[in-house]
Amino acid sequence: MSIQFNTIGIIGKHGDPTAGGTLLAVVHYLNQRKCEVLVDENSFDVAPELIGSATGASREELGSRCDIVLVVGGDGTLLNAARSLVDFNVPILGVNLGRLGFLVDISPEELKSKLDLIFDGEYKEEKRAVLHARVMRDDKLIAESPAFNDVVVHTCSVARMIEYEIYLDGQFVNANRSDGILVATPTGSTAYALSAGGPIVHPSLNVLVVVPICPHAMSFRPIVVDGATRIDIVVGEANQARAQMTCDGQIDAGLINGDRVVIEREKNPIRLIHPESYHYFNVLRQKLHWGKRL
Amino acid sequence: MSIQFNTIGIIGKHGDPTAGGTLLAVVHYLNQRKCEVLVDENSFDVAPELIGSATGASREELGSRCDIVLVVGGDGTLLNAARSLVDFNVPILGVNLGRLGFLVDISPEELKSKLDLIFDGEYKEEKRAVLHARVMRDDKLIAESPAFNDVVVHTCSVARMIEYEIYLDGQFVNANRSDGILVATPTGSTAYALSAGGPIVHPSLNVLVVVPICPHAMSFRPIVVDGATRIDIVVGEANQARAQMTCDGQIDAGLINGDRVVIEREKNPIRLIHPESYHYFNVLRQKLHWGKRL
Amino acid sequence: MSIQFNTIGIIGKHGDPTAGGTLLAVVHYLNQRKCEVLVDENSFDVAPELIGSATGASREELGSRCDIVLVVGGDGTLLNAARSLVDFNVPILGVNLGRLGFLVDISPEELKSKLDLIFDGEYKEEKRAVLHARVMRDDKLIAESPAFNDVVVHTCSVARMIEYEIYLDGQFVNANRSDGILVATPTGSTAYALSAGGPIVHPSLNVLVVVPICPHAMSFRPIVVDGATRIDIVVGEANQARAQMTCDGQIDAGLINGDRVVIEREKNPIRLIHPESYHYFNVLRQKLHWGKRL
Amino acid sequence: MSIQFNTIGIIGKHGDPTAGGTLLAVVHYLNQRKCEVLVDENSFDVAPELIGSATGASREELGSRCDIVLVVGGDGTLLNAARSLVDFNVPILGVNLGRLGFLVDISPEELKSKLDLIFDGEYKEEKRAVLHARVMRDDKLIAESPAFNDVVVHTCSVARMIEYEIYLDGQFVNANRSDGILVATPTGSTAYALSAGGPIVHPSLNVLVVVPICPHAMSFRPIVVDGATRIDIVVGEANQARAQMTCDGQIDAGLINGDRVVIEREKNPIRLIHPESYHYFNVLRQKLHWGKRL
Repeated sequence: MSIQFNTIGIIGKHGDPTAGGTLLAVVHYLNQRKCEVLVDENSFDVAPELIGSATGASREELGSRCDIVLVVGGDGTLLNAARSLVDFNVPILGVNLGRLGFLVDISPEELKSKLDLIFDGEYKEEKRAVLHARVMRDDKLIAESPAFNDVVVHTCSVARMIEYEIYLDGQFVNANRSDGILVATPTGSTAYALSAGGPIVHPSLNVLVVVPICPHAMSFRPIVVDGATRIDIVVGEANQARAQMTCDGQIDAGLINGDRVVIEREKNPIRLIHPESYHYFNVLRQKLHWGKRL
Repeated sequence: MSIQFNTIGIIGKHGDPTAGGTLLAVVHYLNQRKCEVLVDENSFDVAPELIGSATGASREELGSRCDIVLVVGGDGTLLNAARSLVDFNVPILGVNLGRLGFLVDISPEELKSKLDLIFDGEYKEEKRAVLHARVMRDDKLIAESPAFNDVVVHTCSVARMIEYEIYLDGQFVNANRSDGILVATPTGSTAYALSAGGPIVHPSLNVLVVVPICPHAMSFRPIVVDGATRIDIVVGEANQARAQMTCDGQIDAGLINGDRVVIEREKNPIRLIHPESYHYFNVLRQKLHWGKRL
Repeated sequence: MSIQFNTIGIIGKHGDPTAGGTLLAVVHYLNQRKCEVLVDENSFDVAPELIGSATGASREELGSRCDIVLVVGGDGTLLNAARSLVDFNVPILGVNLGRLGFLVDISPEELKSKLDLIFDGEYKEEKRAVLHARVMRDDKLIAESPAFNDVVVHTCSVARMIEYEIYLDGQFVNANRSDGILVATPTGSTAYALSAGGPIVHPSLNVLVVVPICPHAMSFRPIVVDGATRIDIVVGEANQARAQMTCDGQIDAGLINGDRVVIEREKNPIRLIHPESYHYFNVLRQKLHWGKRL
Repeated sequence: MSIQFNTIGIIGKHGDPTAGGTLLAVVHYLNQRKCEVLVDENSFDVAPELIGSATGASREELGSRCDIVLVVGGDGTLLNAARSLVDFNVPILGVNLGRLGFLVDISPEELKSKLDLIFDGEYKEEKRAVLHARVMRDDKLIAESPAFNDVVVHTCSVARMIEYEIYLDGQFVNANRSDGILVATPTGSTAYALSAGGPIVHPSLNVLVVVPICPHAMSFRPIVVDGATRIDIVVGEANQARAQMTCDGQIDAGLINGDRVVIEREKNPIRLIHPESYHYFNVLRQKLHWGKRL
């Protein structure tokens, strides 16, 4: 049974005036459908026409009051939205600005036709795992953050490797020197992890990928582990490079030797809405310029 | 609850006289424990001392009558044994000949101590997925085989690529030119797939890995998919290289243009027995010379 | 000082009727310029209109009598032409059939304008190294061939690795197991070697690249060596896979254990003619879809 | 003709007390040979026994007065020494502290026997190219440094790529997004460049390697270019990550958008001295655990 989408949240790409037109088109569409519309209070800057006519809302209000949140922008905009809405279990739908994204698969030209179908119940819902990273120092929590794509522990000393140990569910795996190490969700497997040499992971899978970044030991290759695994990355006591943790390339925490980064799956996944016609490999084939049918 | 191992099958590495000593040691141990022992009828050549004293048996008899089958040799010996026993649901235990294998993790020196523990119930059982490959030509079955590590579709024309399409559960993924393409179980992820650039996959996971071998398109990277996926590899109609399918590098079938190789998981997994102290990543760390604790 | 191109040889893509139109356009252009034209006797099949009106010639005649040979087809056509002309020191110019090649960089649309410039002396000449491979068995020569792209020693037993040793100028380098090993010229570095993980090598360099194909040892990485190096690949005495040598993917020789494949540079390079405006990295950027100027 | 080594400089690994013993052994050996010995003034801390008895000297004095400089430590110590001596054309000899290095190939155990041979003229001299990097901002020189291994331009914003263009001898090659980009000498090809996916380059070759670090575009692969090439890396005007240049992982310069890093070979190479028995691939085989003779 499909959901009735009555109250709709909208989040636009921050600071990008080219997002304004598509944002307005979405609001116009929703007004015509007589939906209640809440606009992310930080999105008015790209569509000042909406000031006065549309109701602003915080991310919390969007998460708690809406039946669905439409995100207008690129994959980065959706990552940001997803992290802020992870506690609210609200479905998210991505609309791009003319360039297909892995996560924002509806284009402005097909906006009306696709939204018609989706609002009439012709949609798929996909659950995408989210990570939660904590930095522990002497058993105290120093920093924490959700991550939709990946958690990265990386050197900040350019061209100087960090030294660390990896534990999976408390079991020692190995000790390494590398530029860094990342843990990616299936969603993140086509982002930074792919550049670092990781595999593509179908988003339906309950797994995580551990990918070393420029490792010193060539036999340290990407590892696919169960999605419920607790992954600990412990910065070595004799490590000589500055180290940092980053979630989705955006939230940072400095690390010192002995710090333990604990990565586990968030309890709630992100609920992504797609048109019925959506197929993951069709998007991938376009994005990666793979060969079409012979 | 642990199994009572009363009737024990033994399979030795075929054609390798150095396997004889360990094979005899295993039989001696089992005789002392008053077990009923059945020796693979093809294993007498490496231990002729057993002729007359030990009971020979076919693989079918080993599979249907034994409580456990001990395999003495390398990973290749265990692969071979596993394929022949896949229909019988009998647990398998691997004993190596002095060199640690991914699958044969008990060494001759620790034979008695480890077997004592295992036969007293101190063991772990691990379920490892097995593949089943079928070659379809004009909807007729041409060849089929189980595979414990991987199914490979490969050019036989050296340095000339094959052309093919991939379908996952009937959904078109991409068309490619490459030396070949392989589908590996988690067990096979540390074998040929690793040399071809695939990730390491924890054996507990219900996934398969699709790995292109020297692909022409650099964006065609290894893909991790659900273990229940039906994977079709269709040789292109205009393909100009000779093509072949291989299971675990041992069973071959020639392919012609238009042939469809259908790869699915076998209904039954292989049941691998390990000592309680076994940890997958400890074996991996030794085999791949990964860094020890800092 | 530029060459006067009076006698012109033409070689067309064998067996491809779509090459006929461009072949005729080239002949037409040369007739108008009052050049003497010799057509490869195997190229009449794709342009039967030329039978009777054009003079046929063997590769030997083309090589010994022509001031330049125009090759109409893809990179494979030019590879084939180059191997057959390697002893004659004749310049070669590549014309493609609408799809840019690494070696055939003049397109049919720009045929007249580019040929006008080239025949008026506005061209660059580039020297491209060619390899010569010999198979030695008990110090006897079993087979030999030139190779413009690469010499490949490869398993013919799908998914079973060959075992071999490598020597550079008689100095032992290492022993390996892999699907195969290739030695590429700079020209070949963007062909099979690239799919196998080798680097791109600028064609002006006097170097060769040794690239293992799916090696068992992950630390065996591509090696760049001096162009004058003699490279010996010796099939191991205990090797258990069938092995084969291939030059440019076209000339084959079966190998047995103990065979020694000796790879050295040919005395003469191939002389490739390009328009003045040609830049290697412009071709590369187009072929590999690299990013354009920001 | 071999050099008479009369005045000998010594540089020890800075801040590592374990270097003291080998340092003293070297000085003792040289005293017995009646050589004049100059000790790097920063090396006394690890061998305080030498204070008073040995003559201290600056790097400049070592470079201008010595016939040879012995470096006692690891590859990093030799890199540091080489950069500081690049203007002096003095031969350098590396002695390790028990662990074979790519550059420091004499072990403490074989110290006397190897030095006996070398001082008697039984040695090889190898010339190793050195890079020189300059950071240009609005045509003004902002920073410059030699580099023996590599020049790296890298993001300092973890998990956020930099955007830049590459020019070779003024010719545009491509524009990219990646964690960074490095230019390595053959010496550096087995250091950071190897971890980033570059090939191994024989040190005798007059080439450089351009290696992208975790590039967004998978078709941007390592490129081998002529050693005399001027390589420009220009940070994009719209680049959104902080960028930095590093030479051998030690000397840093912050970059801003529009900065141009110009990399050229130093006029003088480093002159490395090795025992006659030294072979590059023997060192490589040991360091990379390659397979020994079959």
